[in-house]
Amino acid sequence: MSQIKAYGIIASMFTIAAVDIGGTQLRAAIYTQGRAQPLAVKKVATKANLPNTFDRLVGLIEDVLPQDRKVDAVGVSAPGPIDPHTGIIMATPNIKEWRDFPLAAKLTERFGFPCYLDNDANLACLAEWKFGAARGHHNVLYLTISTGVGGGVIVNDNLLHGHQGLAAELGHTIVQADGPICGCGQRGHLESYSSGTGIERHVAEQLAAGRKSILDKNRKNSAQEISAAAKRGDALSIEAYRLAGTYLGIGVANFLHAFNPSIVIFGGGVSQSGALLFDSFEVSLKERVIHLKYLEGLVIANAELKDDSGLLGARALAEMKLQK
Amino acid sequence: MSQIKAYGIIASMFTIAAVDIGGTQLRAAIYTQGRAQPLAVKKVATKANLPNTFDRLVGLIEDVLPQDRKVDAVGVSAPGPIDPHTGIIMATPNIKEWRDFPLAAKLTERFGFPCYLDNDANLACLAEWKFGAARGHHNVLYLTISTGVGGGVIVNDNLLHGHQGLAAELGHTIVQADGPICGCGQRGHLESYSSGTGIERHVAEQLAAGRKSILDKNRKNSAQEISAAAKRGDALSIEAYRLAGTYLGIGVANFLHAFNPSIVIFGGGVSQSGALLFDSFEVSLKERVIHLKYLEGLVIANAELKDDSGLLGARALAEMKLQK
Repeated sequence: MSQIKAYGIIASMFTIAAVDIGGTQLRAAIYTQGRAQPLAVKKVATKANLPNTFDRLVGLIEDVLPQDRKVDAVGVSAPGPIDPHTGIIMATPNIKEWRDFPLAAKLTERFGFPCYLDNDANLACLAEWKFGAARGHHNVLYLTISTGVGGGVIVNDNLLHGHQGLAAELGHTIVQADGPICGCGQRGHLESYSSGTGIERHVAEQLAAGRKSILDKNRKNSAQEISAAAKRGDALSIEAYRLAGTYLGIGVANFLHAFNPSIVIFGGGVSQSGALLFDSFEVSLKERVIHLKYLEGLVIANAELKDDSGLLGARALAEMKLQK
Repeated sequence: MSQIKAYGIIASMFTIAAVDIGGTQLRAAIYTQGRAQPLAVKKVATKANLPNTFDRLVGLIEDVLPQDRKVDAVGVSAPGPIDPHTGIIMATPNIKEWRDFPLAAKLTERFGFPCYLDNDANLACLAEWKFGAARGHHNVLYLTISTGVGGGVIVNDNLLHGHQGLAAELGHTIVQADGPICGCGQRGHLESYSSGTGIERHVAEQLAAGRKSILDKNRKNSAQEISAAAKRGDALSIEAYRLAGTYLGIGVANFLHAFNPSIVIFGGGVSQSGALLFDSFEVSLKERVIHLKYLEGLVIANAELKDDSGLLGARALAEMKLQK
């Protein structure tokens, strides 16, 4: 018996290459199962406006490979709509040359090991569930709030993918059918209110309409600048974050009614805004849930993993695929 | 080998009591696994305004029990928020005396066999997946559109329950944050636009505001009466259904983005309205999905099981529990 168990442990000591494709950086790391720290890690600039991103990615993976080049699988986190079943990147917001790009197949062709691909919000959710704030939870809602709003959902210890792998596109939930235009071109999405872009849009509209503010009305103000102005007491800036938080509460109420998670995790730069965003979020969420039971014991937490979540999510994906 | 297989079949030939608790009727039936038709079925009036509903239910089950009283389990479909983990009815819209009512425990105490409970929309979804329009699909969205709007979701061949069993409350999705009041008291829910109640509300508001119509402005007009008037060309009635369909498209777009199902099934009386509701639904859904891939191969179908869906869902629930 003990020998069988020992074999089991040996057989599952995978070596994983993890890749995180970001708009500004490409990262790669090598992990051995059971060890938190990577054996090797490297990052380079994405240079998304230059051609040959795939060649830069291959060079980066070459640089972190172990000397014996033995890797059991590679997991890849990438932005934008992705088909996780086929490993095809349908489109990315930054790397324009990758449209319907079969990244998993091309990496497998180049290196010979199996490659698994999923989108960055799903994998950040998976990473938080396996290594971060959601450890021990079985039903998880993860929202990343930065330039856009992305979502990932764990249902009964599995990432929610749906039929084609297109589930959990939660930033594009319609919360005000006649609301403002979203980055995607549609109207009234959660993202059009509660993202950094949404906060910037509200301020720009109000400044154009003649609202008083300490912000410069002659140029675009970033979400960070608006946050700084809010902390100096600027009423318009405070209002912009309050509105973002109010709609975030509306969106999360919808997601509690849909998924009934035991934890909600917030990642992304704008989620670091503290009371500026979350005071109105809490008021709105309490007001909008249809039964307080949805909030009983509900954990609301910040993401724990920060910059490493893409790599750790890619790692977790590859480990889970190998164990199946 | 063949003997083992035969044992397997014998062991799984369960006898199931199925119960459907409706606002107007209580139904009970006895099913043997592998046979579509019930061995016995009976229905009585719920008389929800009278006390002792539990006793009427017990009497009804007694009436359908086989002579040897041997039943492996009872499955129960009931409206309203339910805790499927504990078998407690939190509240029902009609049977006021059942608040935090431990129905599963009380039935088990009375009859001695295990009892499993879930809400009517979840079980209608389960029934369509196991016996009806969604056979062979792995990711299913079911919406019932009648007085209210209810939802059920199958994710990878399992009913979506979430942490406390409160998931898939899809009628209460906020689609217009500042929209009209819903039956639940909150604002801007899908149900406040696309249910029979929502259609009636729109007509009542417009009549009160002096809109011309062939409908009687001095009394409440039912969704059926509005449908009949629409078919006679009444512009206000046509508009009311068109608005309901438009918001139904908005809600379903949200659910495609959240769950990415391969089939959407509509049940409930208002879903029988044909082009009156679904012409504007289709336009709205196509306009509101963020990528046409969500609609590729998507099946949109009417529920097949009609009045039996509650009993068949309760039956499927009990069979699944016994097989686990």
